[in-house]
Amino acid sequence: MAKFDLDTIRHSSAHLMAQAIARLWPDTNVQFGVGPVIENGFYYDVEMDHKLTEEDLKKIEGEMKNIIKEKLPIERKVMKKEEAITFFKKEGQDLKIELIESFPEGEEISCYQQGEFIDLCRGPHVESTRDLPMAFKLLHVAGAYWRGDEKNQMLQRVYAACFQDKKELKEHLHFLEEAKKRDHRKLGKELELFHFEQVAPGSPFFMPKGATIYNELVEFMRRIYRHYDYKEVITPQVLDSDLWHTSGHYEHYKENMYFSRIDEREYAVKPMNCPCHMLMFAHYKYSYRDLPLRYADFGRLHRYEKAGAVSGLTRVRTFCQDDAHVFIDVNGIQEEIQKLMEMFFICYKHFGFKNIKVNLSTRPEKKAGDDETWDKAEDALKKALDNSGHEYFIKEGDGAFYGPKIDVEISDALNRYYQLGTIQLDFQLPERFNLSYTNSESEEVRPVVIHRALLGSLERFIGVYLEHVGGAFPFWIAPEHAVIVPVNNANHLDFANKLKEELFREGYRVRVDDRNESMGYKTRQIQKAKIPFMLVVGDKEMEDLSVSVRAYGDKFSKSMPITELKEKFHHLNLDKMPEELR
Amino acid sequence: MAKFDLDTIRHSSAHLMAQAIARLWPDTNVQFGVGPVIENGFYYDVEMDHKLTEEDLKKIEGEMKNIIKEKLPIERKVMKKEEAITFFKKEGQDLKIELIESFPEGEEISCYQQGEFIDLCRGPHVESTRDLPMAFKLLHVAGAYWRGDEKNQMLQRVYAACFQDKKELKEHLHFLEEAKKRDHRKLGKELELFHFEQVAPGSPFFMPKGATIYNELVEFMRRIYRHYDYKEVITPQVLDSDLWHTSGHYEHYKENMYFSRIDEREYAVKPMNCPCHMLMFAHYKYSYRDLPLRYADFGRLHRYEKAGAVSGLTRVRTFCQDDAHVFIDVNGIQEEIQKLMEMFFICYKHFGFKNIKVNLSTRPEKKAGDDETWDKAEDALKKALDNSGHEYFIKEGDGAFYGPKIDVEISDALNRYYQLGTIQLDFQLPERFNLSYTNSESEEVRPVVIHRALLGSLERFIGVYLEHVGGAFPFWIAPEHAVIVPVNNANHLDFANKLKEELFREGYRVRVDDRNESMGYKTRQIQKAKIPFMLVVGDKEMEDLSVSVRAYGDKFSKSMPITELKEKFHHLNLDKMPEELR
Repeated sequence: MAKFDLDTIRHSSAHLMAQAIARLWPDTNVQFGVGPVIENGFYYDVEMDHKLTEEDLKKIEGEMKNIIKEKLPIERKVMKKEEAITFFKKEGQDLKIELIESFPEGEEISCYQQGEFIDLCRGPHVESTRDLPMAFKLLHVAGAYWRGDEKNQMLQRVYAACFQDKKELKEHLHFLEEAKKRDHRKLGKELELFHFEQVAPGSPFFMPKGATIYNELVEFMRRIYRHYDYKEVITPQVLDSDLWHTSGHYEHYKENMYFSRIDEREYAVKPMNCPCHMLMFAHYKYSYRDLPLRYADFGRLHRYEKAGAVSGLTRVRTFCQDDAHVFIDVNGIQEEIQKLMEMFFICYKHFGFKNIKVNLSTRPEKKAGDDETWDKAEDALKKALDNSGHEYFIKEGDGAFYGPKIDVEISDALNRYYQLGTIQLDFQLPERFNLSYTNSESEEVRPVVIHRALLGSLERFIGVYLEHVGGAFPFWIAPEHAVIVPVNNANHLDFANKLKEELFREGYRVRVDDRNESMGYKTRQIQKAKIPFMLVVGDKEMEDLSVSVRAYGDKFSKSMPITELKEKFHHLNLDKMPEELR
Repeated sequence: MAKFDLDTIRHSSAHLMAQAIARLWPDTNVQFGVGPVIENGFYYDVEMDHKLTEEDLKKIEGEMKNIIKEKLPIERKVMKKEEAITFFKKEGQDLKIELIESFPEGEEISCYQQGEFIDLCRGPHVESTRDLPMAFKLLHVAGAYWRGDEKNQMLQRVYAACFQDKKELKEHLHFLEEAKKRDHRKLGKELELFHFEQVAPGSPFFMPKGATIYNELVEFMRRIYRHYDYKEVITPQVLDSDLWHTSGHYEHYKENMYFSRIDEREYAVKPMNCPCHMLMFAHYKYSYRDLPLRYADFGRLHRYEKAGAVSGLTRVRTFCQDDAHVFIDVNGIQEEIQKLMEMFFICYKHFGFKNIKVNLSTRPEKKAGDDETWDKAEDALKKALDNSGHEYFIKEGDGAFYGPKIDVEISDALNRYYQLGTIQLDFQLPERFNLSYTNSESEEVRPVVIHRALLGSLERFIGVYLEHVGGAFPFWIAPEHAVIVPVNNANHLDFANKLKEELFREGYRVRVDDRNESMGYKTRQIQKAKIPFMLVVGDKEMEDLSVSVRAYGDKFSKSMPITELKEKFHHLNLDKMPEELR
């Protein structure tokens, strides 16, 4: 099988699927759009009178297997443009004609034929349908506009997973299963963390447990900030458009902003904190002794996303970032970036993200600032990354026009990569706001600004992290640390309440479950809620001042003196701060 | 002197001032508007061609004293309406004519005459100008629209303090002086707590020190919430107008809201959190076992105030409250209110507010909800207040149409009263949102909602508290706890840094002042910044591991072993929680 590469196999399998659909529904005006290879498989866009169901997907899979068994040779045919148009018109494939018409005049049109089925295609393909492994699975059907344009008709897009062999397919399907179980929208609901309402698309309502996680993340970042000498500020959210003209957001970002007219002035709800921080820097007189000056801001931001595009916590219209701006001398860049890389790596590891990818994007063709500054800045970034001892990738020319950028991707428990952190140098905003500080020679000079975020949007981070831990949060950030269950209320409730009170006073989030329900029922509920500890107290525990401790995921409980339990909790709670920074 | 009451004296002194002005500027078309008694004195509105200056106020005071010495008898004159109009027309007092014309036909017009000066006035007055104590001071001149209508001409309003005797006047002037020193706008700037920008009227920018106070207040309330079993939630800020129609805000509060059109839907930035909490309650199924359910929310609110009305932190367009909503059974009201009163009194005392006034506002004529519910609710509030053992005042008929209310006023260090806390019962919102929970008989019943805030707007509270403590914050909430000053950098800087590191690790906000400035200069700066402690370290301190401690406001320092200093700090920091709740 290995004589064809995976992309070719996937591509030919897309044709295979189209052929099967055409065979199964011959009288439904089937027309095919495009059928590209994607990560882990392929899809094909289909227009037909019949609406495909889950069961239809099984039927199509069966027919695909039949065609493989028919061992149809796959042959390339070349036509002239006019010839191709005539051919596909006869076949009723109007979408293909649209594609052909967009090709340059005189170009040869390449098609591939297998049995009765012929498709417009550049290739390459396998030689025969029998070359295709039976390692595909049709996953689901979604709506998709023809050519991605919402003014066009909606087609049915059939998604499929496709691999070299059945083992790989099985692994992938297991991954999909696991990802589905961990879907943060599903977990968010089950664990009562957050939900959405019609009146606020893309704007989560965090219930008490979700808000606990949210606030713990903010507190976590505050501890990190304290260590690295960041100063938190609080800035307004609704600001006059004058400011957005100065910052350039009005010119470049207007479509994503919410406007409101007040007193015959136009105001916008802030999509970013940076302009506020520029104003603050400009408001005071700073000297080189005050630099690097680091303003942190958990201000709420609003950015318009299409109602159809918002999804769970990963695409929202409103969020807070662990946002900060560092005002710095151009000669201070390297040291600051090294500190940032240290901070980023320590924190990501603390959250259990094992693979961390670092990308450095350098100057694009169109850029602000002179080459000398860019040289200095890029050089400083490279040296800082070299010194931090981590591998990194250079994306030549991929920086923003106002400065080079480092972005950091992490992989989660299912090996999916997410970009979280960004470190963006900016030579432009200090210009626009005419910022300056006094250097050691008493001259007024312009600072460089670093925009940086480690977690990024807290909302999105919670979504990613929730899937990463599958809803079973580490002790320090768990919405509830423990539930105490008395064996029976009549004899053990007082003891349970007293224990609760003691743990509560030490700062833990604990409650007593004193409902008249069975131990089995309570155990299942506590496991389902993924609470780190269930603490059962009965006669024995009252007698020797102990608890029967069952950690989340464990099959059995363990008896433990209360003093030891407290030490255990204290120890676990130290994780509020990464070990390296304690 | 005591034969006339203070109001009469103030009123007659207003006439005295008007007479003096008329005498001093006879050729400036002087016209008088109204001259009422106000708290601590009086004012008079004057229209004239001459613009009064600070120096003019001195001249007027001199002339007022002359008139007192002239011992002019003050006599009441009664005229018919027509007669009065003719008279004041002759005098050129058009504003008085406007006033007279608004009186009912046939009413006798009362005037008072002293020497050449005659004024329209109901009285009463003293008998002679010599009855007036020379215990007044003209304070300042401000612009004021005639009859408070901005479409009318602007008059000059001359403000005066006026008392029974010179001692009282002196005390009041001292108070004014003190209030000016404590003005939170002035202190906010001096202590680098917050500032304002043109692009965001009424929207403070909290600098790092101000943000520290802000966050400490939030953390303080979170500790209180934890104790009283409140659950914090995080809710969106931009919500569809549908919601504001349901809540009634669109009908009653539209003028104060900011709107934005998105995707052809109308959205408003939230002025209050309550509708979000109603949605949250409606989203889940609750039973009587879950009640009282307390949602707390530090969500940022936006309420339009006229650009001219915003001032410092006390009148802003954006703020957060220590806002919470309690969902409760009508039979649970009394117990909950008692808890609330306990919480309020403990916290206000903790902030050092000594006098606490409680007002209970009962059902107005036009009201929502039946009399039985109102009876129950008012009765519960009264019983709760009785049980809490504090005096309270009943404001009959002063409640909102949707429920009775308790408001709490506190007096600050200068004995000024501010309303901070409110406890508002609401029978209306649960109706509008069709809320219900399952009672112990498995019936679906409607809860009552309590809106409550203890500090109210955090912004406003910071303004009030800043003036109350005159910028010298208690240790636990102070933006900086201590500054360490080495006697000389060459010998003592390492020791200073080591001490700083130790205190920093224990959670304190400390820094080392290692600038090349004199000890005297540093001392003055630390005093001016009102930092609780200055810690000086030199040879002696290095030798015996001590510090020379100077507390804010103290004239002298005191030597203290570092271990004792740490104990002291630890002890002071316990005030993060009121003693009663530790």
